[in-house]
Amino acid sequence: MNPLTKLLNIKYPVIQGGMVWCSGWRLAAAVSKAGGLGLIGAGSMRPEVLIEHIRRIKENGVTNFGVNIPLLYSYAEEFIDIVLKEKVPVVFTSAGSPKKFTSLLKENGIRVVHVVSSAKFAVKSEEAGVDALVAEGFEAGGHNGKEETTTLTLVELIKKSINIPVIAAGGIATGRAILAVQSLGADGVQIGSLFAASEESSASDSFKEKVISAREGDTILALKKLAPVRMLKNEFCNKVMEQENAGATKESLVELLGKGRARKGIFEGNMVDGELEIGQSASMISSIQPVKKIMQNLIKEYEEALNNFEAYF
Amino acid sequence: MNPLTKLLNIKYPVIQGGMVWCSGWRLAAAVSKAGGLGLIGAGSMRPEVLIEHIRRIKENGVTNFGVNIPLLYSYAEEFIDIVLKEKVPVVFTSAGSPKKFTSLLKENGIRVVHVVSSAKFAVKSEEAGVDALVAEGFEAGGHNGKEETTTLTLVELIKKSINIPVIAAGGIATGRAILAVQSLGADGVQIGSLFAASEESSASDSFKEKVISAREGDTILALKKLAPVRMLKNEFCNKVMEQENAGATKESLVELLGKGRARKGIFEGNMVDGELEIGQSASMISSIQPVKKIMQNLIKEYEEALNNFEAYF
Repeated sequence: MNPLTKLLNIKYPVIQGGMVWCSGWRLAAAVSKAGGLGLIGAGSMRPEVLIEHIRRIKENGVTNFGVNIPLLYSYAEEFIDIVLKEKVPVVFTSAGSPKKFTSLLKENGIRVVHVVSSAKFAVKSEEAGVDALVAEGFEAGGHNGKEETTTLTLVELIKKSINIPVIAAGGIATGRAILAVQSLGADGVQIGSLFAASEESSASDSFKEKVISAREGDTILALKKLAPVRMLKNEFCNKVMEQENAGATKESLVELLGKGRARKGIFEGNMVDGELEIGQSASMISSIQPVKKIMQNLIKEYEEALNNFEAYF
Repeated sequence: MNPLTKLLNIKYPVIQGGMVWCSGWRLAAAVSKAGGLGLIGAGSMRPEVLIEHIRRIKENGVTNFGVNIPLLYSYAEEFIDIVLKEKVPVVFTSAGSPKKFTSLLKENGIRVVHVVSSAKFAVKSEEAGVDALVAEGFEAGGHNGKEETTTLTLVELIKKSINIPVIAAGGIATGRAILAVQSLGADGVQIGSLFAASEESSASDSFKEKVISAREGDTILALKKLAPVRMLKNEFCNKVMEQENAGATKESLVELLGKGRARKGIFEGNMVDGELEIGQSASMISSIQPVKKIMQNLIKEYEEALNNFEAYF
């Protein structure tokens, strides 16, 4: 048992990242049942939908799970009320200041983990009283930091700066990658893309197929003038890149992006006009599998790498 | 002994990257003497200067060293003649096709290592007959790949695609980072930034001081419309970013860059107008030390991390 598995009361230090249009109660339940911690991603839900998902996961017999709340999302405050009322055991907060709700959540017995992309915000989050941190690197899918610090650099930097447990995220889709970030000092991992392409993910089949066929260089961190997002290259993404290369303003990018792009791509399966958020590790994923099998594979790869290890020095 | 230490006839699988204006014979000699492999970086030299450096390192009693030749550099062909005549034991080639000179070098008993930033070019390089590869990720300093694949993702992707030894590069400045990339399957590491800031580096003191004071987010991959380069943010870099954000053409960026920017910054110490090439790992470097001490520290950190390791699963 390490400080993270103890804190989150899990068998394996593997967290399934809360992802828009992918991680409803079905995915979260499967991950929690497989020994990790599943997160319901509230970022693409309306309040009544979040309540429904929390109730469904409980009805399914899963008591240990979390909800990811992007703090800049318009429903953030309502979501905080919901997780308090529903007594959700763990809340992951992202995209915003951890100062606002951490005390309230913790006073109500909820463990709080905050997602950061820099050591600077890691320190601020620890000061705000969060229980653990996700250190998310440049290679991660979806919304991402402006500093572009990669997981390899970020995890060690953050680990040096704070004393609470650190969960590495970004670029992790294999047992070897888990072993690598553990070597950097991570107390556990948060995995997104691999679970986004799992059988239990609520993403459309076309999205999952596109993810497993992705090769290196098929994702890009775009929309940096708004909030940087890593996505698969498709017609929509090409338009963004073209306009960005031509020096598009923030306003014209907001207009190009419009509303509901991620829903259109990930959930509705529009591979042309949708925003297909995914990480660089998509290039390491080659099939759509059930969560249980995914977890077994990760552990097997990890153990094989460890058994074959021969020290350099 | 692993396949890489055997191939390169070195005690430790640690290669010092060939870096413009940093890695002359003094740095390369120190790294080879400390048990790694030092490379003379020919990319900032004229032919007569390269000859001088090769002769000086030999006079210094170092027989095992390499020369890094950027294949797109105007003197590349002359450099190939020089390494053949001078019987340099190892040549690292980068920035160009490995097809052109690999056979010639190998027929003359020279071991050839090629630097790549994608699995696609790793496969082509293996086909061209190179003996080993450097897999260089997005976080590396200086010239970099267009795919922006990070070291964490790249090393495993490349390792899966080929059978020759793989040297991980980009983001490695600590013993823990060495352990991390080894976990991904790397047979060794190439370290740049940390040695660029060493006592034996030929970079100016102002450059070294700037490197050790760099924090996260202080470097950026810029000039993507020309050839992407990671550099420290300074007034020159800010001008580049401003113009890129405004949609600058390739031509206007070529004009802004001008000639001799890297020399001005790294070698002459002009922190305002120079191009200060360095990797993200600069944020992990806090002092200017002699190579021998650097190597001892790396091994100590690596061993400590290994000794304190407790498997997740």
